[in-house]
Amino acid sequence: MEIKVQQTYRERALEQLLADAEKIAQLIKVQMDHLTMPQCPLYEEVLDTQMYGLSREIDFAVKLDLIDSEVGKEILTRLEQEMNALHELYMKK
Amino acid sequence: MEIKVQQTYRERALEQLLADAEKIAQLIKVQMDHLTMPQCPLYEEVLDTQMYGLSREIDFAVKLDLIDSEVGKEILTRLEQEMNALHELYMKK
Repeated sequence: MEIKVQQTYRERALEQLLADAEKIAQLIKVQMDHLTMPQCPLYEEVLDTQMYGLSREIDFAVKLDLIDSEVGKEILTRLEQEMNALHELYMKK
Repeated sequence: MEIKVQQTYRERALEQLLADAEKIAQLIKVQMDHLTMPQCPLYEEVLDTQMYGLSREIDFAVKLDLIDSEVGKEILTRLEQEMNALHELYMKK
C-alpha cells in the first residue's frame, strides 16, 4: 500500500507537469500559426516567463522525488527545441 | 502505512516551500539593510520573478493536494506584506 500511494503522487506530479508543458507547447503552436500576423513583441517574454514557471515546478518535483531529474530535463529540452524552431521561423521572415 | 507516506510527502512539500519562501524573505531583508546604498533598479524585478516562481510551486503543490490552498496563500501573503514594507521604506527615502 505504501508504494501505491507513492506511485499515485508521482503519477499525478508527472501528469500535472506534462499538462503544464502542453499549455506552453500550445502557446508556441499558436504563435507559429500566426507568423503572418503583426508580430507581438511580448510573445518571447510570455514564453520565457511560462518556461521559468514550469522549470520551478519541475525543480520542486525533483527535490521531492516526485519525478526523476532526467524526465524533468527532457520536458524542458523538448519545449526549448520548439521555441528554437519558432525563433528560426521568425528570423527567416 | 498509507497515511504515513502521504504525510511524508506533505511534510516535505511544506518544508521545501517554506525554505523557498525564506530565501525570498532573506532577499527582502538584505535589500532593507542596504537602503542607504545606491539603489539597484533590478531588485523589484528580481523579487517579482522569485515571487512568481514560488507561486507556481505553490499552485503545483495545491493541485497535487500536497498543501492546503489556505496555507499556500498565507505563505505568499506574508511575503507580499514584507515586500510592501520594503517598498514603503523606499518611498520615504
